[in-house]
Amino acid sequence: MTQMLDVLRDLRSITATPGRGCTRIAYTHYEDQAHDYVWERLRAIPGLRRVHDAAGNMFVVPEAPVTAGQPHVLIGSHLDTVIEGGWLDGSLGVVAAMHVLSQRVGLGADVSLVVFRDEEGVRFNTGLFGSKVFAGRCQPTDLDATDGDGVRVRDVVPDPAGCRDYRPPVDPSVFLECHIEQGARLVTREKRVGMVTAIVGIRRFALIGTGSANHAGTTDMLRREDALVPVAEIIGRLPTLVEGIEDAVITCGRLSVQPGAPNVIPGRVTAIVEMRAQDESTLDTIEQRLRGLVDQARGSRAAEVELQPSVVVPSAPTDPEVQACLEAVLATRSIPFDRLASMAGHDTQQAGQRCAAGMFFIPSIDGVSHNPAEDSRYEDVELAGDIMLAWAEACLARCS
Amino acid sequence: MTQMLDVLRDLRSITATPGRGCTRIAYTHYEDQAHDYVWERLRAIPGLRRVHDAAGNMFVVPEAPVTAGQPHVLIGSHLDTVIEGGWLDGSLGVVAAMHVLSQRVGLGADVSLVVFRDEEGVRFNTGLFGSKVFAGRCQPTDLDATDGDGVRVRDVVPDPAGCRDYRPPVDPSVFLECHIEQGARLVTREKRVGMVTAIVGIRRFALIGTGSANHAGTTDMLRREDALVPVAEIIGRLPTLVEGIEDAVITCGRLSVQPGAPNVIPGRVTAIVEMRAQDESTLDTIEQRLRGLVDQARGSRAAEVELQPSVVVPSAPTDPEVQACLEAVLATRSIPFDRLASMAGHDTQQAGQRCAAGMFFIPSIDGVSHNPAEDSRYEDVELAGDIMLAWAEACLARCS
Repeated sequence: MTQMLDVLRDLRSITATPGRGCTRIAYTHYEDQAHDYVWERLRAIPGLRRVHDAAGNMFVVPEAPVTAGQPHVLIGSHLDTVIEGGWLDGSLGVVAAMHVLSQRVGLGADVSLVVFRDEEGVRFNTGLFGSKVFAGRCQPTDLDATDGDGVRVRDVVPDPAGCRDYRPPVDPSVFLECHIEQGARLVTREKRVGMVTAIVGIRRFALIGTGSANHAGTTDMLRREDALVPVAEIIGRLPTLVEGIEDAVITCGRLSVQPGAPNVIPGRVTAIVEMRAQDESTLDTIEQRLRGLVDQARGSRAAEVELQPSVVVPSAPTDPEVQACLEAVLATRSIPFDRLASMAGHDTQQAGQRCAAGMFFIPSIDGVSHNPAEDSRYEDVELAGDIMLAWAEACLARCS
Repeated sequence: MTQMLDVLRDLRSITATPGRGCTRIAYTHYEDQAHDYVWERLRAIPGLRRVHDAAGNMFVVPEAPVTAGQPHVLIGSHLDTVIEGGWLDGSLGVVAAMHVLSQRVGLGADVSLVVFRDEEGVRFNTGLFGSKVFAGRCQPTDLDATDGDGVRVRDVVPDPAGCRDYRPPVDPSVFLECHIEQGARLVTREKRVGMVTAIVGIRRFALIGTGSANHAGTTDMLRREDALVPVAEIIGRLPTLVEGIEDAVITCGRLSVQPGAPNVIPGRVTAIVEMRAQDESTLDTIEQRLRGLVDQARGSRAAEVELQPSVVVPSAPTDPEVQACLEAVLATRSIPFDRLASMAGHDTQQAGQRCAAGMFFIPSIDGVSHNPAEDSRYEDVELAGDIMLAWAEACLARCS
């Protein structure tokens, strides 16, 4: 089972959109089929069994009972994808975990594999659902999220009540994940591995302009309460708010203008501003700067401008001990690596609520992801499996 | 027929939205009913007859043949409205014309009234249609414009071919119109009349940003081609482009951001920028400044930004002789007035293509229009009728 690439190619063929990338939406038969494929490949290894939890997360665990308090490493990622996504996002981490299990035959009942459900959140407009359940943080609102057909999360999970009153199939001391970077920092810096120091916190705000819709001809410039102009001033300056800050981004990706006629002054504008940074104090700094811009725009224009917090995802530092184990593995092998924050959310940030957790990236060619063109060099894919094996061993050694 | 306010109140009751302002969309039975009401009020006056042209514009003309080359004054406006509009927009000008006809009984076959169709352009997303036909400028595209139900202009006008190959029922030497200002300049300056020197030219542009949609977390700030940021920079500075220019406005009323997800960098943005000014050279200046902003944004950001002209309506100066007649009328009566440009389009700008044309405004309370709250002081409404009568007489005297 060293043929990681063969397994990845088989997984790639399980898609709702053949020829247009991987489409395995959460809780569809494509995702189920991918889970089953993974188990079919692993069941030949002696001493393993498959269990599902209340969310439908799949665990491949030792047949022998795991002794409580003994070091245990859980490795995994997810197999659901975005629509027409790439072949490595999620799958790489699962296949690296399969590689570890296959290489450790007979070496002890101390490593398990997990495939989390619905990491991408495409279907229910959520994200990290399966790992959130595993973290014991599932809320009623998570189960009530609805897809485009009106189907709720609670309608598709095996055991909705069990998602809230959760009992994990294993109680690991450490969770490990590897993933493609989905950005271009490693490629740019010519590193083969990115040690993830933290998964970014996300703060999303509604930036709302409220003015007065009026005739765009007869309302002279001084009498206007144009809701768009002050909001546009702010958006035009967003990039300046993160200048000089490492691993921080700010984006306005959605903007609506009402009533939206070419000859009517905008009366109401809603923009969504999202900031990401690796720690809360950096987020505080960026938020403070944004509030400064809002105050400035509010002072200089007749329309009202306000900032309403909507989404808050706290930043999640990874475990320093687990990082140290990875650093030792990389140093021994002289692999060029860099420390960096993950700019996207990952299951690791949820798993880290239950146990010590760590994560590394391999380079994404051209930084492309969520796209059929997503790819990594084959030698980097193979390296991910080797590092994951050594890292798991290092963690077990350190814990015991 | 001196009760202009009574007539206006009767017209106000002809609406598809009782209690929510006037809704008389073009070529609906509400517009027809308003036309018929006007004729019913006028048919008692001896020596008048009603005719319709190919567009369905209604003319009330002398029964006696009008001698070619003799001075003839045409007065009018429109009776269609926007959705839930006010009671004076258009109606005032028609009712003032009715007042003139009623006061000139037996004084000669030298004044006619016109009610133009579809001035507002709400239904077919056009504007000034009836007067455009009267001006002899109707294009095939005007007839092919389609409403929300797929009905074309050519399906509702009495004679589509006649709209293109047009023969006007009268051949006036002068066209006169009065209207509410729909802005607040007269109120602010404490004037009772605005002499319209020109109807603004309008230039509309699509301001298009083209970048690359990408993950808003993993795409660092330096690698982004964010289509929104440069467009927002430009929109935020639009008001500076008309600073210090009298009777000029600039507006972005419509903006779309694609793909429009909070966590995806905008790949394509389309904004509509509209500028209005009273003469072409001022429009040239503003357009040049806008192009300067676009060049600057293009230079400083990775995304491409371009400006595509869409709508061009040339500015339309009113006739100086007709203005002089109005000035004499106002001076004789010591009515405080101001010269100003009309910031909205009006039938006068089309009628001016066929003959000398002039227009005046009375004040709009609080500058409100296209709104059920639209209103003017009753004494200003009555004054409009008196001025229109004296102005028509003055024009006839000057022409003969």
